[in-house]
Amino acid sequence: MPNTTNNPIRKSWLTVRENSDFPIQNIPFGVFLTKEDVITIGTRIGDYAIDLGALQQLDYFEGIDLTDDMFMQDTLNDFISDGKKTWRLVRNRIGDIFDSSNPKLRDNPEHRDIVIFNMEDVEMQLPVLIGDYTDFYSSKEHATNVGKMFRDPENALLPNWLHLPVGYHGRSSTIIPSGIPIHRPMGQTLPNGETTPVFGPSRLVDFELETAFITTDANIMGENIPINEAEDYIFGMVLLNDWSARDIQKWEYVPLGPFLAKNFASSISPWIVTMDALEPFRTKGPTQEPTPLPYLQQKGKHAFDINLEVYIEPENTEATLVSKSNFKYMYWSMCQQLAHHTSNGCRVNSGDMMGSGTISGPTPDSFGSMLELTWGGKNPIVLKDGTERKFINDNDTVIFKGYCQNRTVRIGFGEVSTKLLPPFVRK
Amino acid sequence: MPNTTNNPIRKSWLTVRENSDFPIQNIPFGVFLTKEDVITIGTRIGDYAIDLGALQQLDYFEGIDLTDDMFMQDTLNDFISDGKKTWRLVRNRIGDIFDSSNPKLRDNPEHRDIVIFNMEDVEMQLPVLIGDYTDFYSSKEHATNVGKMFRDPENALLPNWLHLPVGYHGRSSTIIPSGIPIHRPMGQTLPNGETTPVFGPSRLVDFELETAFITTDANIMGENIPINEAEDYIFGMVLLNDWSARDIQKWEYVPLGPFLAKNFASSISPWIVTMDALEPFRTKGPTQEPTPLPYLQQKGKHAFDINLEVYIEPENTEATLVSKSNFKYMYWSMCQQLAHHTSNGCRVNSGDMMGSGTISGPTPDSFGSMLELTWGGKNPIVLKDGTERKFINDNDTVIFKGYCQNRTVRIGFGEVSTKLLPPFVRK
Repeated sequence: MPNTTNNPIRKSWLTVRENSDFPIQNIPFGVFLTKEDVITIGTRIGDYAIDLGALQQLDYFEGIDLTDDMFMQDTLNDFISDGKKTWRLVRNRIGDIFDSSNPKLRDNPEHRDIVIFNMEDVEMQLPVLIGDYTDFYSSKEHATNVGKMFRDPENALLPNWLHLPVGYHGRSSTIIPSGIPIHRPMGQTLPNGETTPVFGPSRLVDFELETAFITTDANIMGENIPINEAEDYIFGMVLLNDWSARDIQKWEYVPLGPFLAKNFASSISPWIVTMDALEPFRTKGPTQEPTPLPYLQQKGKHAFDINLEVYIEPENTEATLVSKSNFKYMYWSMCQQLAHHTSNGCRVNSGDMMGSGTISGPTPDSFGSMLELTWGGKNPIVLKDGTERKFINDNDTVIFKGYCQNRTVRIGFGEVSTKLLPPFVRK
Repeated sequence: MPNTTNNPIRKSWLTVRENSDFPIQNIPFGVFLTKEDVITIGTRIGDYAIDLGALQQLDYFEGIDLTDDMFMQDTLNDFISDGKKTWRLVRNRIGDIFDSSNPKLRDNPEHRDIVIFNMEDVEMQLPVLIGDYTDFYSSKEHATNVGKMFRDPENALLPNWLHLPVGYHGRSSTIIPSGIPIHRPMGQTLPNGETTPVFGPSRLVDFELETAFITTDANIMGENIPINEAEDYIFGMVLLNDWSARDIQKWEYVPLGPFLAKNFASSISPWIVTMDALEPFRTKGPTQEPTPLPYLQQKGKHAFDINLEVYIEPENTEATLVSKSNFKYMYWSMCQQLAHHTSNGCRVNSGDMMGSGTISGPTPDSFGSMLELTWGGKNPIVLKDGTERKFINDNDTVIFKGYCQNRTVRIGFGEVSTKLLPPFVRK
């Protein structure tokens, strides 16, 4: 089935401003709450949120095999579970409905009133119920930077790193959509030079610039997903800020990995951009040397050219761009991550989320965390308001943006924006 | 409200054989499927499964504030979410209904037919939808054994171990109830003396003898649970076999912790034994030296005297008891684990599961894994059929049993039994 929605010359009858992340070629999926407290699955074109539940009730998806309440739900899990064929049929149909040449909805003001909302009038929710969240560690530059800082600069990468996409399990219960503020976490840390730990607010709260992909239910427990099939089970991608408390992490993480240093919050952008929409931005990933074992070998282009930006916005002042990176730098592809994850028979469900790991580029201005940008706090960043940052301050808002751009079209993620509040104090 | 169900002299009008794990003083909660394909929440007395959905429809819970379909569900999450007061009211009522002196259901054969099943006629399911699964590492003996084998025997415990309950996130999607067989996992390992890894079946599949507790939704994100309140948010406990592939673990786990070595399967006993039922078996835990930080300090008895047994049953032969341990050996209590887990504001939901970590006792016959029992394979165990085991063989069934016993009553968990099948082969 052709992926007709990507036609770069197509225009929508809805206004889309220049450089919008959401032209008619995008058609991402999300969940939003209206002012009337209705929750629904939706998409976005320009600055309009589109109620897919209403569209379905008005019979605009006629001919596509969907359960009656497919879009009148508060998560996308069931839709994602229907598989790639359905995703594409629905996305193509939405493209048709909003194509400038199609009068059906365009010329029906009554229907338009029911279906179309201004983005400022809706509240974005988590798009999926995330059963399990896995975070990988697949940027060679990031792993090398961390290895240089904390281990042996001459042997910065650990022996397993070039042979498998290192990953670990995260916490689903604290994944939040863009816009929800978080508190600076309390935790146990070991002051420099001491042997007895203390408990208090983390002093080294950091962001991690990541993307994540959302899966469909792909396998039964005990069976693997072969790498050549892996891409069929990836629904789409979001931006992910995997908040980290570096001082808590340092004290707790040996031998079983990060725990409280990470599980206080992970923020995601609310619109899932489909792999179909990202298709024009497919590119070649880094050369893998040594050659991976056969179960991780793949041919063709499996990286995606997604520009990533990080901004820090102190309270009441403007934001400063502190990093520019790109998803194409990732050493291990999403297919390799998924094939590895299931190589032992681990079951993957609809709505599971898998993070890339911090995405650092090759130059110091492309690093994906304050830890790396300031090299452990040694080289503070000066913001536009003249203040310095080694890590993130209370009341700072951290904003990630992500977009693909070629000569004809821009496909973006919007943003994930999260304010760091002071520590929670029990009254 | 008194916990009347624990009255040790109470008898049920249902037959309960001597030494049953499920006298009327237990009243655990689970979910089962009947031969008519009806799924329901239930309890167990003796060898009878009791349909709580049917009891509710027949109005036996009159006067207790429950939603209409509370027990006609396929998970206990909503019931657990109702909180401790409701758990106790329902458990006390069940005790009353089945008390030998109460004729209401006893003398109503029509109702009995609807409500009571033979255990052999039902199929136990996972009792809860597990949103997040955390595994701790809270047995000092286990951590010391592992440290001696893999690190410095003189400094077996890592510096953080005595200061906090070390934990990490596991995978919810592969938690299965007793009785479901699993496949030997495939995975990447580094052969001894080599520098290049290979991919194939794990050669070192092991059990980990654990218990786990199930939580209610206890806090809002960003807020902690003070240690003195933690126990109110623990619904009950199960036995947990946290299957492990030691060779995969060794190669993958530095620096971010266990991943594919663990997430191929974790098996649990299907009946959640409530904290109310375990109350008579409360005991003092090990002395904690150094004194934990204030947020982890608690007074009183917070350990539980739960006998634990591990059996290996090769195909077509009888089972051999290979370890006897006890939950009371745990250094960190469940309350300390929960207070620590939420000390950074991490949200805990109804149905979350938190594993104890491998429970090893002080003597070599009380170790909780083959890794420790055979000391890394150096001292194989001889089974009753004369065969030796360093780790678990294909077609072996591993069985854990757990029970509390005092002079008047025995409260047990039944068992978690899992057969290890050969590796999955794609046809």
